[in-house]
Amino acid sequence: MKIAIAGAGAMGSRFGTMLKRAGNDVILIDPWAEHVDKINHDGLQIDTDNGSEQFQIPAFLPQDVDFQPELVVLFTKSMGLVTMLKAIEPILTPETKIVCLLNGLGHTEVIEKYIPKANIFMGVTLWTAALLGAGHVKLVGDGSIEIQNIDPAEADAAKKICAVFDDAGLKATYSSNVMFSIWRKACVNGTLNTLCTLLDCNIAEFGGLPQSNDLVRTIVAEFGKVAANEGVLLNVDEVAQHIAKLYDPSQAGEHYPSMYQDLILHHRLTEIDYLNGYVAAQAAKLNLQTPVCQVLTEMVHAKEQLLVK
Amino acid sequence: MKIAIAGAGAMGSRFGTMLKRAGNDVILIDPWAEHVDKINHDGLQIDTDNGSEQFQIPAFLPQDVDFQPELVVLFTKSMGLVTMLKAIEPILTPETKIVCLLNGLGHTEVIEKYIPKANIFMGVTLWTAALLGAGHVKLVGDGSIEIQNIDPAEADAAKKICAVFDDAGLKATYSSNVMFSIWRKACVNGTLNTLCTLLDCNIAEFGGLPQSNDLVRTIVAEFGKVAANEGVLLNVDEVAQHIAKLYDPSQAGEHYPSMYQDLILHHRLTEIDYLNGYVAAQAAKLNLQTPVCQVLTEMVHAKEQLLVK
Repeated sequence: MKIAIAGAGAMGSRFGTMLKRAGNDVILIDPWAEHVDKINHDGLQIDTDNGSEQFQIPAFLPQDVDFQPELVVLFTKSMGLVTMLKAIEPILTPETKIVCLLNGLGHTEVIEKYIPKANIFMGVTLWTAALLGAGHVKLVGDGSIEIQNIDPAEADAAKKICAVFDDAGLKATYSSNVMFSIWRKACVNGTLNTLCTLLDCNIAEFGGLPQSNDLVRTIVAEFGKVAANEGVLLNVDEVAQHIAKLYDPSQAGEHYPSMYQDLILHHRLTEIDYLNGYVAAQAAKLNLQTPVCQVLTEMVHAKEQLLVK
Repeated sequence: MKIAIAGAGAMGSRFGTMLKRAGNDVILIDPWAEHVDKINHDGLQIDTDNGSEQFQIPAFLPQDVDFQPELVVLFTKSMGLVTMLKAIEPILTPETKIVCLLNGLGHTEVIEKYIPKANIFMGVTLWTAALLGAGHVKLVGDGSIEIQNIDPAEADAAKKICAVFDDAGLKATYSSNVMFSIWRKACVNGTLNTLCTLLDCNIAEFGGLPQSNDLVRTIVAEFGKVAANEGVLLNVDEVAQHIAKLYDPSQAGEHYPSMYQDLILHHRLTEIDYLNGYVAAQAAKLNLQTPVCQVLTEMVHAKEQLLVK
């Protein structure tokens, strides 16, 4: 299958290389010129527990893509989604299918402006990866992925895409309720990312606080109000227990969430508008009360103002 | 008049020395042994814009006070109020009057457990001062103070206390609505202290954020719900404008609020339970919704857990 990975950070690079190794015709698309140049000149350097290799895979800047994909896998940061879609619009045809694997909420509505709903497939993944520098990723650990069609008539197409991913070792399963999984993952990020960033701590430290359970439940309850309106029923107890499991140092505990790394360590803008900010914005439209998500969103934006130059 | 200053930090030291200079019989009471020893041994070192002097004034540890005051001026930190009241209970008589000048909310209910309501006078002050070390304060700038009786029958007594303070140059006026002034000052501290501490910025930096006005108004509106229940009407517009004036670097702008200094600089516990925490706790009793104060209180306590060893 002809596949374009739109957004070739750590995760996009992982998916691209695994899909190419499985025999697909794969290209990477990314706006970071140095990254693209390195990949094309030296190959993508992949570090694993077994060593390091240079993997040959074509890479393009978004405006330079010369390729007609059957499938586009979106793996940008949330803030980069619109720019990416605008840049690759010329290579999209009425048949091109898109799988969206971004973290966060509200992406379907954006993608619908560029391709028919029937061609949009939403996914959520537990794979991880790390970008160590331009043209250099580290791929360790195991993962899986769920995918589902948005258009109820396209379940077969979703299953075919699952098969392509699964053949590449990505452990893909067809989901009958991917929006639930997306919301549940957004609850993880909308609590741990946001609070670790504002409190300046890692996940294990946060989990050790006497306040953690109450803070998590308050936020998840607000996410649940908006999710319910989108037909997704979040159980606050279940989601809070799921989040609490991540406090264990043998899980994600010792890890600083991506938002912390972006804002506190690297002074970059965050994805808050696609987490708590999405919830607050939708709640405002629906006349629901989510004051905590609103204030946390403003506080993260305030910290962006203070730290991002 | 025989006056005991209970809590001889920066502000207590200022009031004590000014009241003593005016001819009153004044002692200082403070739990910091090194501070008390220095004052008794060398005098209190007072730095002003005109130089430095050693001021002779007796100082006692709370458990050692040998003095029968007609008036006690409470100037502890909020967290130290109960300990101080318990320690000085033996020197209180049915005639002893108490003026409470602590920042924060909810102190009247505490003091009522130790002396009759008729003897309690609440005040709020705009004087400032800085404690530079044991036995060493800096007193610059101008100020004023409002005082009012809690028992409606005690207005004359309040006016007499005002006169004593005013004669000492403390610019005291009798207030007909001191609880309004106390709530309004608590709004200043419950926004600027809390948010500068959590966002790690000074007042001018906070004021320069595009989010500052909305954050302030959200918090003040929640304070207003509980204040209204106590008969104090806060106008969100008026209070927000009052707070915004403090962003000016010629006002408090360049200053880091006391909570920031306590927690971020000195890793000490904060007064959050007497600001946003008081509002959240009262709201819970009254079945009012103040979710933002609740979450901000939990976040400040979380930061205390992370920083206070």
